[in-house]
Amino acid sequence: MENPYYGNEAHGPYEVHDIGRLDLEEGGILDSCKLAVATHGQLNERGDNVILIPTWYSGTSKIWEQVYIGKGRALDPSKYFIVVINQIGSGLSTSPHNTSGLQSGPNFPRIRIGDDVRAQHRFVTETLGIKELALVTGGSMGAQQTYEWAVRYPDMVKRAAPIAGTAKNTEHDFVYTETLIDAIVTDPKFAGGKYSNAQDVADGLKRHAKIWTVMGWSTEFFRLGRHKDLGFADMVSFVDQFMTGYFAPMDPNDLLCMAWKWQHGDVSRMTGGDLSKALGRITAKTFVMPISHDMFFPPSDCEPEQKLIPASEFRPVRSVDGHLALFGTDAAALAQIDATLKELLDASV
Amino acid sequence: MENPYYGNEAHGPYEVHDIGRLDLEEGGILDSCKLAVATHGQLNERGDNVILIPTWYSGTSKIWEQVYIGKGRALDPSKYFIVVINQIGSGLSTSPHNTSGLQSGPNFPRIRIGDDVRAQHRFVTETLGIKELALVTGGSMGAQQTYEWAVRYPDMVKRAAPIAGTAKNTEHDFVYTETLIDAIVTDPKFAGGKYSNAQDVADGLKRHAKIWTVMGWSTEFFRLGRHKDLGFADMVSFVDQFMTGYFAPMDPNDLLCMAWKWQHGDVSRMTGGDLSKALGRITAKTFVMPISHDMFFPPSDCEPEQKLIPASEFRPVRSVDGHLALFGTDAAALAQIDATLKELLDASV
Repeated sequence: MENPYYGNEAHGPYEVHDIGRLDLEEGGILDSCKLAVATHGQLNERGDNVILIPTWYSGTSKIWEQVYIGKGRALDPSKYFIVVINQIGSGLSTSPHNTSGLQSGPNFPRIRIGDDVRAQHRFVTETLGIKELALVTGGSMGAQQTYEWAVRYPDMVKRAAPIAGTAKNTEHDFVYTETLIDAIVTDPKFAGGKYSNAQDVADGLKRHAKIWTVMGWSTEFFRLGRHKDLGFADMVSFVDQFMTGYFAPMDPNDLLCMAWKWQHGDVSRMTGGDLSKALGRITAKTFVMPISHDMFFPPSDCEPEQKLIPASEFRPVRSVDGHLALFGTDAAALAQIDATLKELLDASV
Repeated sequence: MENPYYGNEAHGPYEVHDIGRLDLEEGGILDSCKLAVATHGQLNERGDNVILIPTWYSGTSKIWEQVYIGKGRALDPSKYFIVVINQIGSGLSTSPHNTSGLQSGPNFPRIRIGDDVRAQHRFVTETLGIKELALVTGGSMGAQQTYEWAVRYPDMVKRAAPIAGTAKNTEHDFVYTETLIDAIVTDPKFAGGKYSNAQDVADGLKRHAKIWTVMGWSTEFFRLGRHKDLGFADMVSFVDQFMTGYFAPMDPNDLLCMAWKWQHGDVSRMTGGDLSKALGRITAKTFVMPISHDMFFPPSDCEPEQKLIPASEFRPVRSVDGHLALFGTDAAALAQIDATLKELLDASV
């Protein structure tokens, strides 16, 4: 299905790499798994300056380029070779909407965080020839992938900075995500995923945007009028223009692919359900970086995980913007993330 | 429309009083407004031992009887004459589902917190002959009504204890409530409110219950396994049995009547939008009692209001159960509410 939102024009520059067949943890395969990858900077001779960044729900490599990567920043392309890999289902990499044939749209197979990380591992090791990662970092679902990387490939990951995400999704977050899914799939025009145009599902996407409004920011954010600081006259225009506008062009089946993956994130699948054992495998120096006012990946859910990671520190980021401070709306929070990542990158391992 | 859930069998004993015609703030009238009232204890000779309790969204007078009222408790019927009045739309008082004729079901008029409080005022002054209220207290929408009472009838209200609610609803809470409304009205079987049986809207009510699950408790509640402490094997059974089971028998139009009222709660309507002026009118000794982990009436939204009330104190209740600690699931929180209300009742005014 054509969708003009996804492409180099809005999200580039990035390159699409076919990594071949990917066996999926939930069964089935992706025949030829394509990863959309944006890189910044150059690999150095020792091959020890690689930063890997997996993307979050609904986001792409573009926001990392726009908000986090730059000369003088922690993620400095003049020092590091920064590889941002769009997750499966993101709309840029292999996704329901850009898959034709039997796996198209609603027939796209279930994808797990582990599938993404194995795909990314194959790409960075085989295509790029990379042997170690100076840092893996990502926000939200990018944090889920960061944890998965650190648990699955401990020898390769030297440093890890999961921001606003957990290693094992909580029951609360699971139900939250289910309300997002419900908002989309109960729109009659979703038609079991067989809509002819993503925009047909506008009502469902708007309800999905409203629930994001409630949980994505924080009560403090709205009390302090931060939505008005961002240039919106009132809550109605914030919901209609910013939040609904953000999600409206996206493909519902793509979002649902990511939502299911998000719900089921759990590194303890690698250790028979033993989270302590899974996180105990991490050898990376790890900064666990929840956001203070996050309503669904709150610090209180992240700190118990941090305590299970050997060489780790708890480094919460203060922002009343909550989870969506990830968007870069809070300059002070961005500065704090920058300083924390810099400190981690500068730490010897 | 018949609905066996609403009645003396499940919610009694209570009595229904017809207070006559009620002019509504949004226009229109209720021809004969009926209030379902449960009383406990006796009015003393001086008439100064009355406690008035308005109810919350989806709750009735019954939960106050079961959880909060009792000999030796703050709300002690051997000392006080306790009057619990079910709000309009509650299903026991005049509500969409029990109104016949032109205002039935989806044609029920918009009701505001102010309509409830004026109706209650008429009932307690004219029917019961009460001149002063030793205490007005209530949780959530009951807190909204408590604030409305204290602002509207300052000479009558001696003490006020709004628990887990605000005087002016926030924009964040407004959108949260809208997601609850959306969950119901987008169920095709809701049919614009013209369903033939409330149970036809089971899917919408279940989605509404799921969103309540996410926002009604707290992330800490689930992290600590409090839902399992309450006797549910896992999140699925908690959602399906407890939360969905709780809301499933209720009337969708009744819930929507209350939801709209909740969204639009705002005492500053009495002072041309000036919240400071409205709250400044309160002469009641007031304990503002938010719940620490409340996700939509959080302490941070309640404290700025408290600061605008002359004879007030900020008395947050600690409970990881969040908003729905109101259900009485957290014994320590109940004890704290009891002690705080006792202190308030014992304070001279």
